[in-house]
Amino acid sequence: MAGKESSSVPSTPLLKDELDIVIPTIRNLDFLEMWRPFFQPYHLIIVQDGDPSKEIKVPEGFDYELYNRNDINRILGPKANCISFKDSACRCFGYMVSKKKYIYTIDDDCFVAKDPSDKEINALEQHIKNLLSPSTPYFFNTLYDPYRVGADFVRGYPFSLREGAPTAVSHGLWLNIPDYDAPTQLVKPRERNSRYVDAVLTIPKGTLFPMCGMNLAFDRDLIGPAMYFGLMGDGQPIGRYDDMWAGWCTKVICDHLGLGVKTGLPYIWHSKASNPFVNLKKEYKGIFWQEELIPFFQSVALPKDCTSVQKCYIELSKQVREKLGKIDPYFTKLADAMVTWIEAWDELNPSGAAAGVANGTAK
Amino acid sequence: MAGKESSSVPSTPLLKDELDIVIPTIRNLDFLEMWRPFFQPYHLIIVQDGDPSKEIKVPEGFDYELYNRNDINRILGPKANCISFKDSACRCFGYMVSKKKYIYTIDDDCFVAKDPSDKEINALEQHIKNLLSPSTPYFFNTLYDPYRVGADFVRGYPFSLREGAPTAVSHGLWLNIPDYDAPTQLVKPRERNSRYVDAVLTIPKGTLFPMCGMNLAFDRDLIGPAMYFGLMGDGQPIGRYDDMWAGWCTKVICDHLGLGVKTGLPYIWHSKASNPFVNLKKEYKGIFWQEELIPFFQSVALPKDCTSVQKCYIELSKQVREKLGKIDPYFTKLADAMVTWIEAWDELNPSGAAAGVANGTAK
Repeated sequence: MAGKESSSVPSTPLLKDELDIVIPTIRNLDFLEMWRPFFQPYHLIIVQDGDPSKEIKVPEGFDYELYNRNDINRILGPKANCISFKDSACRCFGYMVSKKKYIYTIDDDCFVAKDPSDKEINALEQHIKNLLSPSTPYFFNTLYDPYRVGADFVRGYPFSLREGAPTAVSHGLWLNIPDYDAPTQLVKPRERNSRYVDAVLTIPKGTLFPMCGMNLAFDRDLIGPAMYFGLMGDGQPIGRYDDMWAGWCTKVICDHLGLGVKTGLPYIWHSKASNPFVNLKKEYKGIFWQEELIPFFQSVALPKDCTSVQKCYIELSKQVREKLGKIDPYFTKLADAMVTWIEAWDELNPSGAAAGVANGTAK
Repeated sequence: MAGKESSSVPSTPLLKDELDIVIPTIRNLDFLEMWRPFFQPYHLIIVQDGDPSKEIKVPEGFDYELYNRNDINRILGPKANCISFKDSACRCFGYMVSKKKYIYTIDDDCFVAKDPSDKEINALEQHIKNLLSPSTPYFFNTLYDPYRVGADFVRGYPFSLREGAPTAVSHGLWLNIPDYDAPTQLVKPRERNSRYVDAVLTIPKGTLFPMCGMNLAFDRDLIGPAMYFGLMGDGQPIGRYDDMWAGWCTKVICDHLGLGVKTGLPYIWHSKASNPFVNLKKEYKGIFWQEELIPFFQSVALPKDCTSVQKCYIELSKQVREKLGKIDPYFTKLADAMVTWIEAWDELNPSGAAAGVANGTAK
């Protein structure tokens, strides 16, 4: 069965030269000590947020490149205005400058989690397994990922769909502090996630989900240009919707191009709840706007000639301008930034621009 | 939050007078001994398949009614031809004669499973929790069922959708022998399911799934008339697609009426693999036909005036006749049987027929 082999992946270091780890940060990266056994073989792209004169310390022995705001401005010139400042949304700059096929991005307050047998979870390895095995967006498999060892497609699963679709995104979860919005944080200050759900599953075609950027991997060649984290933070009326925005755009484009999005394993240990009062201030416009954004994304239709991620994204930016611009001038600015992002992406990835066209087949 | 309370359900015996357990069988029901602590408070409806002169022994102390083929013929008269013979599809007769709001159906080769802490799983109690708490068909929640204790909606989940939708179906899973089709059984004779996935989730709107009848609960008032298990077994060209057929019809109607379908917990222990050679004989036409059935169900549209399950089902029977009749005369016969089923249902459930109309709101 196609893809079956790829789920039995050797232990380390898988895809060593084909994957970059992108970390947005404002502080010293001591958290990397804990990840050393898993991350050290890989190249890191650190995107320093906030004051560029501050020195970020990276533990010894890691192979990394670091970009601060001055670097971003220098590299992108006037196009740098599409990269958020004073917000972890700046991480998407790392996606753009990477030269690798795969990206794993993680927040610096995410530690190594343990599975129910008390074994440390190699989150990156699980993400790679997820990305290297197909997805099943067209029909739900009740035993979850059919490509995992010990599982398969169940009775009644159409045989013509068992080849699956290429996986573009692997969305991992969080033990300890769940990724709640400010209102839920305020209402349930002590809730912790202790439920380890041993499953990976494909988000079905046509279904949107809240994509969290804390513990996320994707195939840059397949979907990279859609992973724009929008305009958040300094000078913007909204925050904490960067990954959500990227997720909705990405899902709609994956559905159109016949690509899969998985969620579930791996877990990381999310160590610290962010301040719910600060979060509420960042989120409150999003809470209103979202009620219009979801119906918008649920009804987006991309024309057949959008055969690359870039073309899809430019088309999406037009629809954002036209249909969401009415909600608030912010969305017109965001639509502009979406175009700038693609221009900057293609400038930094001249071969990728062509590859993008070759990749997709509109479905 | 609506429905939150209903997930903290007292232990036993929940919904004692509102739920029937339906069991199709051809043998003595010794398996009930194992289920005694969980099932004894409830009423059982046993549908005896095959030779009606054979006596089925039921362990002492259970409250039950038993119907054999003679009973079905006597009660339904000429309409009895819509109930399959020599196939566990006959179980749907039990749904029809029940007078309760909820149904749980289980196969007689399903035993009590244990959770990872080695505790016996009260499958029925979990199904009831699933049915009494809402579903979330319109947007995927990455921490699974948000109404479970210790879980909630994550950041980015639209607030307007957090009330959820009424849950019509709870689809449980199986440890040990997975529910594989004949080809998979043949290829993987030794595969066992040992993965306990601690999750309940809603199958999103617009997504079909393979519904297995082995360990299934539903709200008869909300969706009962769609739970027709079709024409299988004696005199029919196909078997082992009874529950699949019911599942596709049910899902399409739930989507139309704004009802939810959950899958995941609870697990039962499926003790015995059926014979893959016999299964292949039953399945092989289904394997071909299914490739046309799935696109059919994926594109079914029910008109707005289909506001009850019965109306939806009659409309569906028309589309089956019109669009699937071309594949094989079997589907014309099945379309007839679908109509007969609804007529018989309404005859036996005169108030239900009216209630059905009042229930649904087309979405």
